[in-house]
Amino acid sequence: MKRRNFMKRAGLAAAAGAASTTLAAPAIAQERFELNLVMPWPKGTPGVGVNAERFVQRVTAMSGGRIVIRLFGAGELVPPFESFDAVQSGSADILHGTPYFWVGKSKAFNYFTTLPFGLNAIELPAWLTYGGGQALWDEVYAGFGLKPFYAGSSGVQAGGWFKTEINTIEDLQGLKIRIAGLGGEVMRRIGAVVVLLPPGEILPSMQSGAIDAAEWIGPWNDVAFGLQKVAKYYYVPAFHEPGPGLEITLNKARYDALPADLQAILQAAAAATAQDTTTDFAYHNIQAFEPLIQDYDVELRAFSDEIIARLGAVTREVAEEIGATDALTQKVHASYIDFVRKSAAYQGRFEETMLRQRREVWA
Amino acid sequence: MKRRNFMKRAGLAAAAGAASTTLAAPAIAQERFELNLVMPWPKGTPGVGVNAERFVQRVTAMSGGRIVIRLFGAGELVPPFESFDAVQSGSADILHGTPYFWVGKSKAFNYFTTLPFGLNAIELPAWLTYGGGQALWDEVYAGFGLKPFYAGSSGVQAGGWFKTEINTIEDLQGLKIRIAGLGGEVMRRIGAVVVLLPPGEILPSMQSGAIDAAEWIGPWNDVAFGLQKVAKYYYVPAFHEPGPGLEITLNKARYDALPADLQAILQAAAAATAQDTTTDFAYHNIQAFEPLIQDYDVELRAFSDEIIARLGAVTREVAEEIGATDALTQKVHASYIDFVRKSAAYQGRFEETMLRQRREVWA
Repeated sequence: MKRRNFMKRAGLAAAAGAASTTLAAPAIAQERFELNLVMPWPKGTPGVGVNAERFVQRVTAMSGGRIVIRLFGAGELVPPFESFDAVQSGSADILHGTPYFWVGKSKAFNYFTTLPFGLNAIELPAWLTYGGGQALWDEVYAGFGLKPFYAGSSGVQAGGWFKTEINTIEDLQGLKIRIAGLGGEVMRRIGAVVVLLPPGEILPSMQSGAIDAAEWIGPWNDVAFGLQKVAKYYYVPAFHEPGPGLEITLNKARYDALPADLQAILQAAAAATAQDTTTDFAYHNIQAFEPLIQDYDVELRAFSDEIIARLGAVTREVAEEIGATDALTQKVHASYIDFVRKSAAYQGRFEETMLRQRREVWA
Repeated sequence: MKRRNFMKRAGLAAAAGAASTTLAAPAIAQERFELNLVMPWPKGTPGVGVNAERFVQRVTAMSGGRIVIRLFGAGELVPPFESFDAVQSGSADILHGTPYFWVGKSKAFNYFTTLPFGLNAIELPAWLTYGGGQALWDEVYAGFGLKPFYAGSSGVQAGGWFKTEINTIEDLQGLKIRIAGLGGEVMRRIGAVVVLLPPGEILPSMQSGAIDAAEWIGPWNDVAFGLQKVAKYYYVPAFHEPGPGLEITLNKARYDALPADLQAILQAAAAATAQDTTTDFAYHNIQAFEPLIQDYDVELRAFSDEIIARLGAVTREVAEEIGATDALTQKVHASYIDFVRKSAAYQGRFEETMLRQRREVWA
C-alpha cells in the first residue's frame, strides 16, 4: 500500500506539470518524485539538521524540482529512533542519521559510524570510497532493503565534562558517566558505571548529581547545550569518536526505480553534503573553542598515557568480539582495522607532526 | 568571437535534440551546453587529472547530457600554465587547477591554495564556506571575469627528499633545493639556493647532482615518480603545504548565463569532487606509506624544533608582506590568519592529540 502511495504521489506530481526553468526552451513535462526524509534530530539542529536541509535544497535545485523532498524532524513523522525501520518498511523514503543508532540490527553498523581509536573524518570516507568500505556497507544495508551514502562527520569529538579530575584508572572506576556507543562498553569494562540518557536529561542529571560526567559532541554543540556550567574539567579529545560518520540512506527499491540522472543527483548531493557537514563542524568548533576557554571556568585536560593505553587495550578486545559476530561483520572488521593501522602509522608522521609544528609557530 | 562560438555550439547541440533518459516520459528538447575544460596536468594524473574526469562524469550524469564537458589535458588545447588566461579570455570555459599557479596575477591567490603552516584539508574549505573565504575568493576572481569553486586537497604534503641529513639551519644554507611556492621564498630567505624545475627535470637533476633536495607531493605520487631511488632522507611533513587546495573555475559570464539547475549541478559537482579528491589522496598516501618504508632504503626524518621555529618566523614575515600588497589582499590575509591561529590552538587539543593517542594504541 505504501508503495502504491508513492507511485500515486509521483503520478499526481507528473500530471501537475513542469519544473520551472530560466530557459527559453518549451515547457517540459517530466515525471516528478515526492520523497519523505526522516531524521532522529529536530529540524535546524546545528551540524546535523541544518545539513539535512542543505541536502534537500541541493536536490531540489539540481533536479529543477523533479525531486521534491519533504523534511521531517525528530518525531514529526515517526519517533526519532524509528527512522531506520520507517525507510526499511517504505513508510518513509530517506533518512538522515548515523549507522550506530541502529546497531541493534547488526553490529557491523558500528564500523560505518566510528570505532574508538578508529578512522578520522577524512579516513572514513577514504576507506568507504577507495578501500572497499562502501561496497561492504551496500552489502550490509542491502540485507535491510536500503542504499546508504556517506554524509559527513562531526570530526573528532570531545571526551566529555567531568566534575573531578581523572588521573588514574581507579578514578574512572565507579564513576557514573553518560557516554554513547562502544565507548560506553569500553568504559564499563574498566569499571565505570555507564548511564544511557537521552540528550534532554544530561544537564539536569549533572546538576542533581545523578551522574558525575557526560560526553556530548564538541565545543560548538557542548557550549550551546550549557555543559560548561555544570562541570569544570573538559577532557579532550574523545577516545571513542575520532570522526563519526553520518548517513543519507534511501529505500533501495525506490532509489533503484529512479531515472539515472536523478540517482546521480542524489549521489552527488550526498557527497556535497558530506563536504558541507564536515567543514561546518570544523569551522564552528574552531570558532567556539577560544571563547569556551576564556569566558568560563573550564580546565582542559587530556587522559594520561596510562589511561589511553588501558582504553586502547580494551577497545581492541571489544572490536575483536564485534568482528567475530558473523561472516559479513568479520569482513567489515578486517578491512576497517587494516586501514586504521595503516592510517595511524601514516598520520603520526604527517598530519600529527604538521599540527604540532604549526601550533608552535602560531602560539 | 569566442563568445559567439560558444553560443553557436550550444545552439547546434540544442538543435541536435534531447538527452537520452531512462524515463518513459516523452522525449525532451532542451538547450544543451558544450563546455571545454583545460588543466595544467595530463589526463589521468593520479589525484588531480583523475578527479577532473570524475567531475566531468558527474556533471554529464546529473544533467542527463544537457552539459557535455570536453576535457583537455596539459597542452592539448592551451599550454599548461595558460589555463587561467584561456578561461579568462573565453577560449576555454572551465579550468581544473590550483590558484597559486597563477599567482603572478595577484598575490591574494596564495591564500586560496595554501600558506606555509596554514590551513589543513578540512580547515581551508571550512574557512571558504563558513568563514567568508569564498566571498573573498569570488571578489578576487571576479576581477578576472572568473567564478571559482573549491575542488579538494592533497592533504599535508611531504617536506621532500634530501641526499644528506638536515640537523641545523646551517645545513640548509647553500643547499640546492627544488621547492614550489611560498615555501621556496621562505627557504631562500634562510639561505637555501632555490631552483625552479618543471616536474620532468626533477629526477635527472637529483641524479646528476645539479640539486641536493626536492619536494614533490607525498608518498603516493613521490614513489610513482621514483624519488626514493635518488635520495635517502625523506623529511615529512611539508611545512609549506599543510593542505593545498584545488579549484574548478569557470568563465563567470558563461556560468552566469546557465540555467539555475545547471548552475546548481556544477556547484554540487565541484563540492562532490572536493570530497572525492581529498579522500583519494588520503587513501592512496596511507596505502603507499608502509611499502615505501619497507621496500626502499629510506630514512624518515622531521625538521628539528629549532628549524621549524626559524621557518615559522620567516613564514610570518613573508605572509605579512604578501598581506600588505593591496587592500583586497589585506582583507584576505586578515581573515585567513585569524582562522589559522584559532585552528592551530583548537587542533592541538583535538586532532593532534587524537592522532598521537591513536598511534600509540595501534603501534
